[in-house]
Amino acid sequence: MKIVVIGASGTIGSAVVKLLKQRHQVIAVSRSGGDHRANITSKASLEAALGAIGKVDAIVSTTGSAVFKPLAALADADFEKSLHDKLMGQVNVVRVGSQQILSGGSITLTSGILAQHPIPGSAAISLVNAGLEGFARAAALELKSANVRVNVVSPPWVKETLVALKMDPAPGMPADDVAKAYARSVEGSASGEVIDARKAVT
Amino acid sequence: MKIVVIGASGTIGSAVVKLLKQRHQVIAVSRSGGDHRANITSKASLEAALGAIGKVDAIVSTTGSAVFKPLAALADADFEKSLHDKLMGQVNVVRVGSQQILSGGSITLTSGILAQHPIPGSAAISLVNAGLEGFARAAALELKSANVRVNVVSPPWVKETLVALKMDPAPGMPADDVAKAYARSVEGSASGEVIDARKAVT
Repeated sequence: MKIVVIGASGTIGSAVVKLLKQRHQVIAVSRSGGDHRANITSKASLEAALGAIGKVDAIVSTTGSAVFKPLAALADADFEKSLHDKLMGQVNVVRVGSQQILSGGSITLTSGILAQHPIPGSAAISLVNAGLEGFARAAALELKSANVRVNVVSPPWVKETLVALKMDPAPGMPADDVAKAYARSVEGSASGEVIDARKAVT
Repeated sequence: MKIVVIGASGTIGSAVVKLLKQRHQVIAVSRSGGDHRANITSKASLEAALGAIGKVDAIVSTTGSAVFKPLAALADADFEKSLHDKLMGQVNVVRVGSQQILSGGSITLTSGILAQHPIPGSAAISLVNAGLEGFARAAALELKSANVRVNVVSPPWVKETLVALKMDPAPGMPADDVAKAYARSVEGSASGEVIDARKAVT
């Protein structure tokens, strides 16, 4: 398969690229490096990058940021940034990317465990992650007629991220294991599903 | 209890007012009528209305709109409108309303069945409804220390709405039954829950 990974330079993205490269052609896209550059918050930038790449079997998005801050401290601008970046950025990946997917192909987005299991400070992120899951379920239904699947991978805390944040890495899942959930979405037949990365390791 | 219902003139809102009035003091708030006027898309308007009302035991929001349109036809402006109105409008109800809730009180928002069960055309609405549910779970956690509960009621299609849309009303649930889910949120002890109105009729 020919697979585009957007956010390829990130912790999860680079693990996904490494895994999928073992058996597929992978095109790495990120904001500041890789084979092509794109910023998901700009539809024009996505259209340019995906248009240049042409038709592919799958697009995986492992990118997008949202603001972690106590509810009382979340300003309008924090919500705006979160909605515009991780949420609408990945919605854009589906809107633009679905034009470039071959019949039988798939688009995989990234939400996160905070959608269902919040912690103090995660109000904007929980909103964004859950919103992405609702969107993906609906988009999968609409893209069925084009024979394009849409799923969301929900990763738990990633070990490498916890190490980088100088937090206890013990509860974290290695990025290489999280990557297996993306392979399942790309190589399997599921559509409209939220794939819990903790349950996708086999 | 002293309870504010925002969206009190709507199909669900008026049924909620009718039910809660049987045993509580209800203050009706809507955009163009009721005891006080407020538009949830404006924090200032909410602050003015809720500030004038003062401390209450519960705030119920049964308002907010989002755009129903096929995914391919959803423009940036349609997503913006949906995010700004039903989603951030109700987030505003929590942000502003939590300042006015007495200890032990609650805030109840409204999502909808399309969060989990999309239909063609519901991509923006499914996103908004699911996002509200993720937000409410997180907000409930953060407001626990203030002894304020937060829930979301997820109504199915409402019979009166289907009639108004000239659709088959058979699968719809009467607004008076949907209202019982709000009473359960207000009068019960749940927090951080998505209350499926189909299961709340007793």
